[in-house]
Amino acid sequence: MTTYNSNGLDRLLAPQSIAMVGASNNLYSIGGLVFANIKRSFNGSLFPIHPKDTEVQGLTAYSEINALPQNVDLVVIAVASHAVEAIIEQAVAKRVGGVVLLSSGFAEAGAEGMALQARIAEKARAGGVRVIGPNCIGYLNIAGGVMANFALTPDEPLPPGGSVALVSQSGGFGSYLTTKGLLTGLRLGWFVSTGNELDVNIAAVLRYLVEQPEVKVMLAFSETLRDPEVFIAAARRAQELDKPLVILKAGRSEAAAKAAMSHTASVVGAVNVFDAVCRQYGVIVAHSMEEMLDLGMIFQDGRRVKNNRVAVMTTSGGTGVLLADESALNGLDVPTFPADEQQKMLDVLHTPFFGSVANPIDTTAAIQPDALKAVQQLVAHSPSVDMLTTVTWARAIEAAKDLVKLYQNTDKPLAVLSTDLVEPLKEAGVPTYTDPQRVAKSLAALYRFSTRTATSASTFTPNAQRVARSRQHLELPAGEFVLMEAQGKRLFAEYGIAVTAEEWVHSADQAVAAAARIGGKVVIKVMSYQLPHKSDVGAIRLGLQGDQAIREAYQSMLEEVAQRAPHAVLDGVLVQQMVPARMELTCGLQRDEVFGPMVAVGLGGVLVEQLAETTLLRPPFSLETARQALGQLLQGRLVQGRRGLSHDEQEQIAAIMVGVGNLALEHDNISEVDINPIRVDAGKAYAADALVVLAGAPEAAH
Amino acid sequence: MTTYNSNGLDRLLAPQSIAMVGASNNLYSIGGLVFANIKRSFNGSLFPIHPKDTEVQGLTAYSEINALPQNVDLVVIAVASHAVEAIIEQAVAKRVGGVVLLSSGFAEAGAEGMALQARIAEKARAGGVRVIGPNCIGYLNIAGGVMANFALTPDEPLPPGGSVALVSQSGGFGSYLTTKGLLTGLRLGWFVSTGNELDVNIAAVLRYLVEQPEVKVMLAFSETLRDPEVFIAAARRAQELDKPLVILKAGRSEAAAKAAMSHTASVVGAVNVFDAVCRQYGVIVAHSMEEMLDLGMIFQDGRRVKNNRVAVMTTSGGTGVLLADESALNGLDVPTFPADEQQKMLDVLHTPFFGSVANPIDTTAAIQPDALKAVQQLVAHSPSVDMLTTVTWARAIEAAKDLVKLYQNTDKPLAVLSTDLVEPLKEAGVPTYTDPQRVAKSLAALYRFSTRTATSASTFTPNAQRVARSRQHLELPAGEFVLMEAQGKRLFAEYGIAVTAEEWVHSADQAVAAAARIGGKVVIKVMSYQLPHKSDVGAIRLGLQGDQAIREAYQSMLEEVAQRAPHAVLDGVLVQQMVPARMELTCGLQRDEVFGPMVAVGLGGVLVEQLAETTLLRPPFSLETARQALGQLLQGRLVQGRRGLSHDEQEQIAAIMVGVGNLALEHDNISEVDINPIRVDAGKAYAADALVVLAGAPEAAH
Repeated sequence: MTTYNSNGLDRLLAPQSIAMVGASNNLYSIGGLVFANIKRSFNGSLFPIHPKDTEVQGLTAYSEINALPQNVDLVVIAVASHAVEAIIEQAVAKRVGGVVLLSSGFAEAGAEGMALQARIAEKARAGGVRVIGPNCIGYLNIAGGVMANFALTPDEPLPPGGSVALVSQSGGFGSYLTTKGLLTGLRLGWFVSTGNELDVNIAAVLRYLVEQPEVKVMLAFSETLRDPEVFIAAARRAQELDKPLVILKAGRSEAAAKAAMSHTASVVGAVNVFDAVCRQYGVIVAHSMEEMLDLGMIFQDGRRVKNNRVAVMTTSGGTGVLLADESALNGLDVPTFPADEQQKMLDVLHTPFFGSVANPIDTTAAIQPDALKAVQQLVAHSPSVDMLTTVTWARAIEAAKDLVKLYQNTDKPLAVLSTDLVEPLKEAGVPTYTDPQRVAKSLAALYRFSTRTATSASTFTPNAQRVARSRQHLELPAGEFVLMEAQGKRLFAEYGIAVTAEEWVHSADQAVAAAARIGGKVVIKVMSYQLPHKSDVGAIRLGLQGDQAIREAYQSMLEEVAQRAPHAVLDGVLVQQMVPARMELTCGLQRDEVFGPMVAVGLGGVLVEQLAETTLLRPPFSLETARQALGQLLQGRLVQGRRGLSHDEQEQIAAIMVGVGNLALEHDNISEVDINPIRVDAGKAYAADALVVLAGAPEAAH
Repeated sequence: MTTYNSNGLDRLLAPQSIAMVGASNNLYSIGGLVFANIKRSFNGSLFPIHPKDTEVQGLTAYSEINALPQNVDLVVIAVASHAVEAIIEQAVAKRVGGVVLLSSGFAEAGAEGMALQARIAEKARAGGVRVIGPNCIGYLNIAGGVMANFALTPDEPLPPGGSVALVSQSGGFGSYLTTKGLLTGLRLGWFVSTGNELDVNIAAVLRYLVEQPEVKVMLAFSETLRDPEVFIAAARRAQELDKPLVILKAGRSEAAAKAAMSHTASVVGAVNVFDAVCRQYGVIVAHSMEEMLDLGMIFQDGRRVKNNRVAVMTTSGGTGVLLADESALNGLDVPTFPADEQQKMLDVLHTPFFGSVANPIDTTAAIQPDALKAVQQLVAHSPSVDMLTTVTWARAIEAAKDLVKLYQNTDKPLAVLSTDLVEPLKEAGVPTYTDPQRVAKSLAALYRFSTRTATSASTFTPNAQRVARSRQHLELPAGEFVLMEAQGKRLFAEYGIAVTAEEWVHSADQAVAAAARIGGKVVIKVMSYQLPHKSDVGAIRLGLQGDQAIREAYQSMLEEVAQRAPHAVLDGVLVQQMVPARMELTCGLQRDEVFGPMVAVGLGGVLVEQLAETTLLRPPFSLETARQALGQLLQGRLVQGRRGLSHDEQEQIAAIMVGVGNLALEHDNISEVDINPIRVDAGKAYAADALVVLAGAPEAAH
């Protein structure tokens, strides 16, 4: 890993000196409110800038940036949009490090605002000033003492800080998240809102935050992702540093994707591609806002586990059953305690005891506090479990204090179910949830992250000779964009994609001779740029053997095509080996607007295709990554059992996947590849068809 | 619908007079606590019973039930288990209406407790006294003034009452649910915990509650269901009365099912059967505890909608996108407002306005309260939307008060997203959620319930003649439990299940003659009680045509079977029409431990079976219900498109499903039926195989 260069983000996000344009004595204005926030948190030099007032909130005010007595790291701006350009010019001139631009009225406000935003972006870039915003609510960095935001108001308590970093494009939702996160006990050390992202975007912020030593978990709410390469770099670095990155993506539905595009004025890629990229690079996708905050809470103490065994401790059988239920449904184990450990628990419990110490442990509501504490201690030190969960009531303050002690005296992750938040648990940072499912999902996420297998890194250098050789197959007549199958197969061969044995012939005699060389049953197919979908017009004959049969089929096929596609220009016939298939798969290439090339692999066959999910990988990826993706398809059923893919078959399919990925990386002008089917049997996998579409093709060609 | 007879539950659950055995002056004991709860809520005659004290909590105490000055409706018991039997005897003698038995130490405490519970159950039943418990925490009925429970303590405020009824077997979890429900603004009018269910169980309570006029929605947490018929009756009645019934089922995972069985000492059926029965009878299955409470909240005001159009109103684009996202993902529509309605909104908004009035409406954070209220009013009266959602912050008390007014001045359902609960919203019963997904899921459930199509009722009277006729096919030699295919097909024919044309023959000559009569290609199969799985031993030959081919196949098949299954006693050969199949389905019968016979239908074929879900129906059901179930399989794809099932094919498959259901209802001794495949093509569907297993078969026969 090369050393991280913050590109000036450190002056922007961890400044030693701050000036604020728009700082105000009116605490009901944004300028007054944000300045008060900065003032109450910041220990460095702070300069209010005001056109008339000589003092703002007790500090000496300056009339403009040019009038400041020193250079500053950060300038916060909260003035009307039309005044911003001139301020940026001064900031550049004064060699300011960064700007937080709170003002709205830019790209979100129509063409004029968009032009203004572009001018400012260019001036800041040229001048080396990093900018957050516009149309954002600023950021907070508790360890650095910077409350340059209006997510929280000055009358709310200053957050205690901590290991959780939160990033959101949306200011309003970011404020919601910050407020709710702090209410629910999240130890928020950072919050950054990026707004219109004229310069600094979510990806860049994550890349910066992952390097900060106090950050143990990162949460991001993303509407659009402007910088996929930096996002992936941040994700990779988070894996290296053992810091979970959790992301909540807006625009999962078509309707919302449209709304996000209009509201952020940027491109939104396909959501299944986004999910696939996250999976590939170890980013955790949250499926709801509360899930994101829940995961922040379970990860904030940095505890890890080696195994998935949970102890469920309750004073009620029903709650225990539900917690055990949710644990099992989320892939955790609720093992029965061994007899000796059960006996130790029974020894400290009252008699008669109508509960259970097996697991779930049901101490019954009749238990005395001391006995409960003793049982909890036994469980906390048990070698038979890795994680703990229990239930409490928000009113039971003493019980909560005991749970805090339990938490502090064990290394095991603890997740508490409570009717509501309890102050002692919140203060101590004990992960607390109001629903059994959220308890289990959080512990399960912790287990999965703790025991993840990192994706092997894969670098890629284009092979110049291969590029040159394969380019000839992509030279089509003017107006053609879809390769004929025979051309596609030749291209595939350059990329190590196993194709069926085949010959391109131009007469029945040649076909017979080719079939004899190939051996066994053959397929014949008409080659024509006009007939990419051969079976629609009878341009294919299957399972032929013997000279007579091949001659007859050749003849009848050409007659049928002449009748059904009279205008097609034919360019010979492909004679192809008919390989056996126990199973058919498909592998393809699509290009996402955000993440670029993506290789898809899935089951073939009409009905099965409808039912089964496709797995997507972003090239470059290793053979190992391709094998892992295959192994996860259909919850692993594809590689299991008597009829599942053998080791050799998996190797060959993985090679096809890598080949398609390399093809995509070396030829930008290929917009789509579809290999359907890949025929698999007896340790072999062959591309039995090939659809390759070049960029610029009209929609109908796909 | 026949008039509901409460069977004495009214005296138990809505008493005019109450006595309590175990009432105590010690407010830290269960007896003291529950008595204080009753005393603070109850307006009827109340009698503490105490062996020594002459006064309990200020009321004259009596030494025993026999000493009471009048008969009472309800006796609450909170004494040690060993003393309970004598008290029940007195209650019977005094013609008490019902007993709430809070004590534990019964079935949950081992063999002795189980015997004691059985004796008490018998005495109460014989004496006509209805019993809730034991091992429960009692119930609350706010409208009736009965707080006979320790779910809440006397120092907590008396719940304000309302339209939500909650039922839970588990006392501990019931207390958790009650506490959390009240905290989150649920208008709880009833809570009943049923504990060990020695008499009154969840189903009976639901059947009672659904008839109570103040109840608008019922929530149930169930570990085991003891009375499926009553549960179904309650569900049907809830549909009739337009009262949603929401159920959260514990024991969904195998591990938890085991825990529930040991903890409640009763049978737990299969969870997919439970879900199917709920779907069939319109019961909403909640997937988490919070989801159940969330649905209680959206249904508590009884509002309904005709359509699925949601208005999303926010002061932040990001929040709007997320709310729109979740709405769309949950099947709701977020329509763009027509131009004239947008213009009306723009007229009341400030300029310049950088937000959107399309929907999601983004008023931006700069909006003034009056303008916001005006926009809200316009949306509330818009003919373009059916439901409303918006976002607020828990600190914004004035905004919450405005939302209460909005809620009270519209018939449209309103769901509010808030960082936390807000007192004004809670007091007014405005559904409030802390997560956008929960907002959308709740509104979507309201829409689905409002627009549900009720399952057509289906009654069933056994056909005595058919029973007699079909019984002969079930008479097997001693020790045999699996019908031969030919026998199964004859049984099927009695139930209107279309079977392939076929003849049962005993020589190659007969086979040839039979094939000629049947026509076309045939299949031949060896019949033997020892060979239910014919293809494993080569006892089947497919696609035969012509005398020669049939003779050869007949011979080779018998030779192969003689070699591979030398001990099988053969009973002739089935010659069967080979019908075409564009698609293969399966239909089967299984018996659930709780719900009895269930008919399953799904796709056939090895891989597809693994991928696709099966739909289950509980007989009796109508052809219409069967068709609906088919229509929902694979999200409707089975009946769509060019290759989907045609109308005639659907009719025939539905007839097979109904036939299997009737078969199950008329023959208790059939434990399993499997028709695999049903071959479907050209408007026809035929049972092409038949596996019928009788009760008592060893496991291996299935």
